[in-house]
Amino acid sequence: MTAAIVGIGLIGGSFALALKDNGLYDTVIGVENDPGNASKAVELGLVERIVTLEQAVEQADLIVLAVPVSVIPTLAVKLLNKVRDNQIVIDMGSTKQELCELISQHPNRGRFVATHPMWGTEYSGPEAAVKGAFKDKTVVLCDTELSDEDAVQKIENIYRTVGSSPINYMSAEEHDTHTAYISHISHITSFALALTVLEKEREESHIFDLAGGGFESTVRLAKSSPETWLPIFMQNKYNVLDVLREHIHQLQIFRRMLEKDDTNGIKSLMEKANQIKKIIK
Amino acid sequence: MTAAIVGIGLIGGSFALALKDNGLYDTVIGVENDPGNASKAVELGLVERIVTLEQAVEQADLIVLAVPVSVIPTLAVKLLNKVRDNQIVIDMGSTKQELCELISQHPNRGRFVATHPMWGTEYSGPEAAVKGAFKDKTVVLCDTELSDEDAVQKIENIYRTVGSSPINYMSAEEHDTHTAYISHISHITSFALALTVLEKEREESHIFDLAGGGFESTVRLAKSSPETWLPIFMQNKYNVLDVLREHIHQLQIFRRMLEKDDTNGIKSLMEKANQIKKIIK
Repeated sequence: MTAAIVGIGLIGGSFALALKDNGLYDTVIGVENDPGNASKAVELGLVERIVTLEQAVEQADLIVLAVPVSVIPTLAVKLLNKVRDNQIVIDMGSTKQELCELISQHPNRGRFVATHPMWGTEYSGPEAAVKGAFKDKTVVLCDTELSDEDAVQKIENIYRTVGSSPINYMSAEEHDTHTAYISHISHITSFALALTVLEKEREESHIFDLAGGGFESTVRLAKSSPETWLPIFMQNKYNVLDVLREHIHQLQIFRRMLEKDDTNGIKSLMEKANQIKKIIK
Repeated sequence: MTAAIVGIGLIGGSFALALKDNGLYDTVIGVENDPGNASKAVELGLVERIVTLEQAVEQADLIVLAVPVSVIPTLAVKLLNKVRDNQIVIDMGSTKQELCELISQHPNRGRFVATHPMWGTEYSGPEAAVKGAFKDKTVVLCDTELSDEDAVQKIENIYRTVGSSPINYMSAEEHDTHTAYISHISHITSFALALTVLEKEREESHIFDLAGGGFESTVRLAKSSPETWLPIFMQNKYNVLDVLREHIHQLQIFRRMLEKDDTNGIKSLMEKANQIKKIIK
């Protein structure tokens, strides 16, 4: 059994390792346009060899799209144009609506499973790939009613075998709303926080001598790759804008209360925010 | 040698452990107004016994203020009123200007050392105290030219012995500007992000099924105690407002670019934010 990973970066590279380490596929091959990343991926043993997209669809039982979300929808259509009945194509992208809409009427739609493992780091490229990445991580499968039952079962088995849990099912639309709130906005906040502090650092030296754990934790996502995240923000534009407006609104409330010395108001905001304890332990 | 910890919560409790674990003081006693926390602190072995503030200043060679910053300045004056020449008083608070101004003309000012170890977690109370907390953490000493040389040396030795490094020296004013940027704003952002998502959660169920590492990392500070953080924001109001305005401004730029599909603009913002890599590894 052969799997082909299209895009061997942080996510694709880590998935290649998970497939091999868990004995799911004898052979993992890769498709990678960037020559540097291609040779690195082979050198690091993430994939056995680099092939073209056409060779991948000829040789592989499973084809995994782990490229930026700007490229996933059209690649998905191209692969479905050629896919055979015993093959499965999946994506691992962070947005789903545009993809699922584009492939919705394709005669081979059943061979596609839209997946999103809720894992990532602020690093990118094949060197960022890590072993055991998907263990105990939530996975979302979208619009599974449009995928063939055998394909969904196979993909669920793969995610369970690499240790992912729980598996959530939702529509592409729900997925994009939820990820805007629990993933995309965190990235924008981090980017903006980094810009805020870098702006100030020009005036004030030594500001970073003090950077401790709290700062690092809120700002680490600002190291994330624009190649990955710009297309996510653009594809999920309306949901992201919706959250961003609400977030700015909350910061403005906080600011006005602070300006007016409204300590009771700030205290009650903070106590309300503390309720997040119920959700993240 | 005896040390007295005033306020045995996350910071005071962890410092008590560090003083004892490193053999710096034979006896560590505590002052704690909250009866529940007081008995908890003794039960957990953080301090040997609970005493009054008056008893602490009679019995201890070192008195450590680890209470909310709203209480530190007046307590510092009260302690300096009674302190003897061989005793030292320090604080571990997150703001310094109000404190340092209030004690600046005190005849015993030399016995006070204003310190801020750059460490904390989102948890509070004596149960939150941990061993080894100050190891490899930056410490700031403020306005050391107003402290007696022997007191500064003693406190530096204590911080070095518990593993803290490096030790930074700055004015109270510089300290409050810098901490607004690298600590206080991170907390406000987290609080606002938690409120944003909790607001949305009322409309959309299951949003938190997906909460992954990125969300957790940016939002964890929202679990922080209002008792600790409200006084910090209020005491550092002007610096915090300054950063908050800049942060809202950066988010608004981001929002306008996204509204206008200005992908080049967003990309260049993200690339600029990526420079934070130089500062946090």
